[in-house]
Amino acid sequence: MSEIVAIENGVCAAKGFRASGVHCGIRKNKVKKDLALIVSEQRAATAAVYTTNLVKGAPLTVTKNHLADGFASALICNSGNANTCNANGIEIAEGMCELVSQHLGIPASDVLVASTGVIGQPLSLDPIAEGMDNLCANLSTTGLAAAQAIMTTDTIAKEAAVSFTVGGVPCRLGGIAKGSGMIHPNMATMLVFITTDCAIAPALLQKALSEDVKSSFNMVSIDGDTSTNDMVTVMANGLAGNPEITAEDGDFAVFCEALHRVTVKLCRMIAGDGEGATKLLTCKVKNARDEQTAKTAAKSVICSSLFKAAMFGADANWGRVLCALGYSGAALDIAKIDVGFASAKGEITVCKAGAGVPFSEEKAKEILLEKEIDVNIDLHDGEAVAEAWGCDLTYDYVKINGDYRT
Amino acid sequence: MSEIVAIENGVCAAKGFRASGVHCGIRKNKVKKDLALIVSEQRAATAAVYTTNLVKGAPLTVTKNHLADGFASALICNSGNANTCNANGIEIAEGMCELVSQHLGIPASDVLVASTGVIGQPLSLDPIAEGMDNLCANLSTTGLAAAQAIMTTDTIAKEAAVSFTVGGVPCRLGGIAKGSGMIHPNMATMLVFITTDCAIAPALLQKALSEDVKSSFNMVSIDGDTSTNDMVTVMANGLAGNPEITAEDGDFAVFCEALHRVTVKLCRMIAGDGEGATKLLTCKVKNARDEQTAKTAAKSVICSSLFKAAMFGADANWGRVLCALGYSGAALDIAKIDVGFASAKGEITVCKAGAGVPFSEEKAKEILLEKEIDVNIDLHDGEAVAEAWGCDLTYDYVKINGDYRT
Repeated sequence: MSEIVAIENGVCAAKGFRASGVHCGIRKNKVKKDLALIVSEQRAATAAVYTTNLVKGAPLTVTKNHLADGFASALICNSGNANTCNANGIEIAEGMCELVSQHLGIPASDVLVASTGVIGQPLSLDPIAEGMDNLCANLSTTGLAAAQAIMTTDTIAKEAAVSFTVGGVPCRLGGIAKGSGMIHPNMATMLVFITTDCAIAPALLQKALSEDVKSSFNMVSIDGDTSTNDMVTVMANGLAGNPEITAEDGDFAVFCEALHRVTVKLCRMIAGDGEGATKLLTCKVKNARDEQTAKTAAKSVICSSLFKAAMFGADANWGRVLCALGYSGAALDIAKIDVGFASAKGEITVCKAGAGVPFSEEKAKEILLEKEIDVNIDLHDGEAVAEAWGCDLTYDYVKINGDYRT
Repeated sequence: MSEIVAIENGVCAAKGFRASGVHCGIRKNKVKKDLALIVSEQRAATAAVYTTNLVKGAPLTVTKNHLADGFASALICNSGNANTCNANGIEIAEGMCELVSQHLGIPASDVLVASTGVIGQPLSLDPIAEGMDNLCANLSTTGLAAAQAIMTTDTIAKEAAVSFTVGGVPCRLGGIAKGSGMIHPNMATMLVFITTDCAIAPALLQKALSEDVKSSFNMVSIDGDTSTNDMVTVMANGLAGNPEITAEDGDFAVFCEALHRVTVKLCRMIAGDGEGATKLLTCKVKNARDEQTAKTAAKSVICSSLFKAAMFGADANWGRVLCALGYSGAALDIAKIDVGFASAKGEITVCKAGAGVPFSEEKAKEILLEKEIDVNIDLHDGEAVAEAWGCDLTYDYVKINGDYRT
């Protein structure tokens, strides 16, 4: 398989994509950007996945309509207001696409739209209309401003990109994400926008994305709340000049692997920057009887409030790991399970064959005081593996969400 | 239907039941009782339900074995150690029953056993053996000491009792409970011990309990973590002298209603005393297309970390209620849903037909600053109703669980 190399930049790493992010006034805090734009100089084959929440943000409905033909040229996204559960939400989301259409001279039906923020507060088009000149004037080939403009309670902008080779031609794929709260994706995560210059048939692009989210964004949980506005898009404009990927061959495998490298990196950034988080938690399950069992087990541990609080306190309370495995719904043989904790400071086994083993509390503390913790679970029941990502539950999660609207 | 009247006491409200609670040394803190005993002067028809967690505490296995004949005379319970995921757990749980047998002169197979506390730490019989004399010497007709001895992070002892009439004969039914953390019951809740002097056939007793938990303990959630040691027992010794209930007649209906009055009261006490809780939250769903839809919707709201944190902050962030309804898995018509908040300070509607309506933030704050909050959801889609109970998510929940073992 061709080498996949991490590169700089995010949503503008691929040829022919420009992006920008500005403050237009949706948010009161003028230091915080609240409007982002991503533009491809050529119509791009575009795949997307959306939240499974029955309450769906109006922008998702409009984006889905505009993607009926599988192609898009631009994406506009605001933060500070989810444009969800508003009587005129569809009208406003369409209006945002129309504004992009007028400013860039492309059909509104080629513009995608996304929103994130508070649910159920009317969103006015006025600040967006006023900000459009500035937004378009700032389009550049670095994606950072766009990554910043989609942040809500995120503390870091999230970008990732790789290069890879298809048919001897170098291609690039990169993306930006926002996460932080209301993160328990089911089909997609909060907002993730990925671009690539690789030429790939639209049906294969959608297939690559739909498969990928099962082991990337759907394995992340911050707080168990599946948002109303989750969306992941991948735009592929083909400007790399590679022979178009049209079959599930070796090139498709390389593309999927490149996509996965970027999505997993964004997953880890989303989990590690969960609301109030001080630690990135990775639950690695191995030797499961099948992949679904491994995934169910890993996700159950990462979602446990008690486990998350214990990790905040660097407390090796492995009973909570066993407990979460036990109620996960996965068919597990508890009497076979080993559990260990690992970090840059080493690894310890705390449970063998479903029962506690003596371990050094001092060593455990040293391991758990690190910023990135792995909980390793060996089910001794097959060969399947899975990983899930989450974060600790902290005072700041409560603080942030105790008065989010104010 | 005969009148059901709340009365004093808990697990000793019924004739012929005595209980005690002492400190025997399982817990280091000598002020905290850690061993409880409940004894019926006559063998009692006994029903029980247990956790659905695949990891089951050893005491549950032993209790289930001892209840194979449907009768019991006593129940012993320790706090401070869950006796779960220990290599010799069964042996210890059997040993606890044997100690009761020796001291009270009843068969060990008529003794039930329960444990609550940390998972995966060996439990020694020594302090229990040493405490038995004291435990038996303190048996009395008030249940408070037993209620105190089963507490872990609970801040209040939980007792409830009622009197009712069967065949013209006054009967009593009462119980004690512990809750606080790892509370998201599925078939039963942490530990609830109920006694009654009503004569009722064992099969009907089990039926009454199994039905009841579906709309009582299974509708409580503190933190989404289903414990390994959940257990609810009802012991019925028949000493009231009523004609035994042997059919699903009017008397059975009275018994079920009496049971429900006590279980719901205990549910509310468990939810209101959730770890770190400052508020009891009740989600009332009405006009659902069927009961399961109502229950699923109510429980999803009560389990949402974001909703719980908003309630801590007295923030009328109703979008989080809609969001939780949307991902609940229930088949809902979002466009029909009304949402309101209520407390002793009044009620306000914040969402009509799935969209926000203007409301006074000041009035909302006044309502949400109370200790008991109802979130009222009208689905306008049928006639079924459900209630679920939970609590807010607070700094103290994180604090309590950040270093529970230390």
